[in-house]
Amino acid sequence: MKNFHYSIPTEIFFGKGQIQVLGKEIKKYGTRVLLTYGGGSIKRIGLYDEVANILKEHNIDFWELSGIEPNPRIDSVREGVKIIRENEIDFILAVGGGSTIDCSKAIAASYYYDGDPWDLVIRKAKVVDALPLGTVLTLAATGSEMDKGAVITNPETNQKLSFGHISMAPKFSILDPTYTFSVPKIQTAAGVADIMSHTFENYFTLEDGAYLQNRFAEAILKTCIKYGRLALDEPDNYEARANIMWASSWAINGLLSYGKDTNWSVHDIEHELSAFYDITHGIGLAILTPVWMEYVLDDERVDRFVEYGVNVWDIDRSKDKYEIARLAIEKTRDFFKSLEIPMSLREVGIKEEDLEKMAKAAIDNNNGKKIGNFKPLGYEDILNIYRKAY
Amino acid sequence: MKNFHYSIPTEIFFGKGQIQVLGKEIKKYGTRVLLTYGGGSIKRIGLYDEVANILKEHNIDFWELSGIEPNPRIDSVREGVKIIRENEIDFILAVGGGSTIDCSKAIAASYYYDGDPWDLVIRKAKVVDALPLGTVLTLAATGSEMDKGAVITNPETNQKLSFGHISMAPKFSILDPTYTFSVPKIQTAAGVADIMSHTFENYFTLEDGAYLQNRFAEAILKTCIKYGRLALDEPDNYEARANIMWASSWAINGLLSYGKDTNWSVHDIEHELSAFYDITHGIGLAILTPVWMEYVLDDERVDRFVEYGVNVWDIDRSKDKYEIARLAIEKTRDFFKSLEIPMSLREVGIKEEDLEKMAKAAIDNNNGKKIGNFKPLGYEDILNIYRKAY
Repeated sequence: MKNFHYSIPTEIFFGKGQIQVLGKEIKKYGTRVLLTYGGGSIKRIGLYDEVANILKEHNIDFWELSGIEPNPRIDSVREGVKIIRENEIDFILAVGGGSTIDCSKAIAASYYYDGDPWDLVIRKAKVVDALPLGTVLTLAATGSEMDKGAVITNPETNQKLSFGHISMAPKFSILDPTYTFSVPKIQTAAGVADIMSHTFENYFTLEDGAYLQNRFAEAILKTCIKYGRLALDEPDNYEARANIMWASSWAINGLLSYGKDTNWSVHDIEHELSAFYDITHGIGLAILTPVWMEYVLDDERVDRFVEYGVNVWDIDRSKDKYEIARLAIEKTRDFFKSLEIPMSLREVGIKEEDLEKMAKAAIDNNNGKKIGNFKPLGYEDILNIYRKAY
Repeated sequence: MKNFHYSIPTEIFFGKGQIQVLGKEIKKYGTRVLLTYGGGSIKRIGLYDEVANILKEHNIDFWELSGIEPNPRIDSVREGVKIIRENEIDFILAVGGGSTIDCSKAIAASYYYDGDPWDLVIRKAKVVDALPLGTVLTLAATGSEMDKGAVITNPETNQKLSFGHISMAPKFSILDPTYTFSVPKIQTAAGVADIMSHTFENYFTLEDGAYLQNRFAEAILKTCIKYGRLALDEPDNYEARANIMWASSWAINGLLSYGKDTNWSVHDIEHELSAFYDITHGIGLAILTPVWMEYVLDDERVDRFVEYGVNVWDIDRSKDKYEIARLAIEKTRDFFKSLEIPMSLREVGIKEEDLEKMAKAAIDNNNGKKIGNFKPLGYEDILNIYRKAY
């Protein structure tokens, strides 16, 4: 196990009705709030009104930044900073999914930087501090509610990049599974795929002595598998929504990654799909994941796939190693299919002639270096994976 | 899944050499330190000198409270509070295992209470705040390094009771697995049993929809099983010591318990053994656990034992339910035996004529109520378990 510094400062209020703590929690940090959200879904489920009423009851003034996009854009960040500076806002409340939260984190950090926020994303400048931020989560997927990272897109440069700082971790997050009851099937499925992909990125590494962390990872994978389809069939199933929601937070907050190697390749090569085509991140991950697994499977890595197959998919360990590995990959693909996810790049509207451009961009955005740790991927590898996934 | 408020404020510095952060971390909170420790082991391994030098280098004044007992006593708490008040101390540094840390937590909370510290333990008075506390862990067992609870013994009343408050959670804990290399076999074994018992207390509950938490629990149990004997055979095995140490923190910090029912019966009936006989807590737990499992196994509970047997011990799920359950219990007992733990109350010197008195005390210390949640245990139940474990 490697050395690490573990810190998860975010407090979580989990369960039905926890919105009741909102006013009191915000008042620990401020009284002038930027309320951020995406489209109309929080209005449709009545959450916007609920939040607005709570803020008013607690004499908390608030301004709004709405219309934050999936794959949130740097322009929204700039806009948010402007509103904050003009109105001496001291707290950000993000109500929504990972996109709204990521955008809000970027705004929070940019408040303490005089230059253009994009400088922080591309690491031209360092994050030094961030405005306090709270979240009310409405989608189980990115884990942004309990970690310190944010992913921001710049459509002008076709870049989708992640950055983070401990100050960007939410002070608190309210996780009420009932807010996810109305999430459409495809978004629910994409969320589950995202959670599983975060887990895979931490799980698939060469032997690193982090046994406990890998068993924790399997716990999250099993949870996604048990409840993923159920959440589609019974969108109001509290147990399913709750387990998936809580899994989303733990897949990426550090529990699985501190003390061990991590991989992070599928995310990076998926980011180009979202950057070029604005497709749903989790869908891109689901398409690429089984192809990536097949692509990296070899003698040096087969044991990790055996571990995955036996521990997660309950495959008989007496079978041949490669048989277990291939079965596990097949089950992974079948699972995503069972969530009604289109399983090829073609089906989501990506043009074949763009594959080379995207593969090149993936490498460029990694400063020209190979991507990932488990089996580093160069330009040809990425292009091959895109083609096999087409 | 039940509603919960999750908060783990403790930062962890994990790994070899992390003691380097000590001076800087303490200085975030204070410059006048009460250094608490137990017997001579931290001097034997050179840790005392290392800590003292770091404090001096950082111009941190310190006073000492040493000789803190296993099953720490209320008198040590009183003594610590006295030293703090006399010297205007503003930070407590606990160097040791769970006993030293628990005692230090109780001191930290008692500083803000004018009456006798025992009032806080018996909940005659409420904890309102605590002095900041940091720890350097030398024994993987109680998880006190990352939670908010403390267990204190009053030999005059034969009481061993737990209490806690969020302010009592350490600000930081330094977990360097090399500090546990010199822990004797029997203490290593007792620590592993303690970690497993914490996990069992959270794991064995009637169906509560907390699927993820139960899979996390299995991750910890598997880790203890994989590395327990190895740590005895190869005390310097870093991977074994590291995995056990990190498991100890997660077994009781809330990951396994928030959002679900918990049991907490074996701990409570073990506390009487330690209170009357001062035997090592983990040894008492190991003796009682398989007997308790056999005692509570019935039609309503057998499925949870099946889950345990299949997921943790890899028992063939096609077998008969009761066969799986009994096999799992047998494997649990065999595992503790393999750690060279004496597996009867007789062997650890408890007198048969005291069993009734201890069973009565267990109930008395629970305000006359039955103990535990999975299958509540009355006086006769506890006495039966003691007798079967004799």
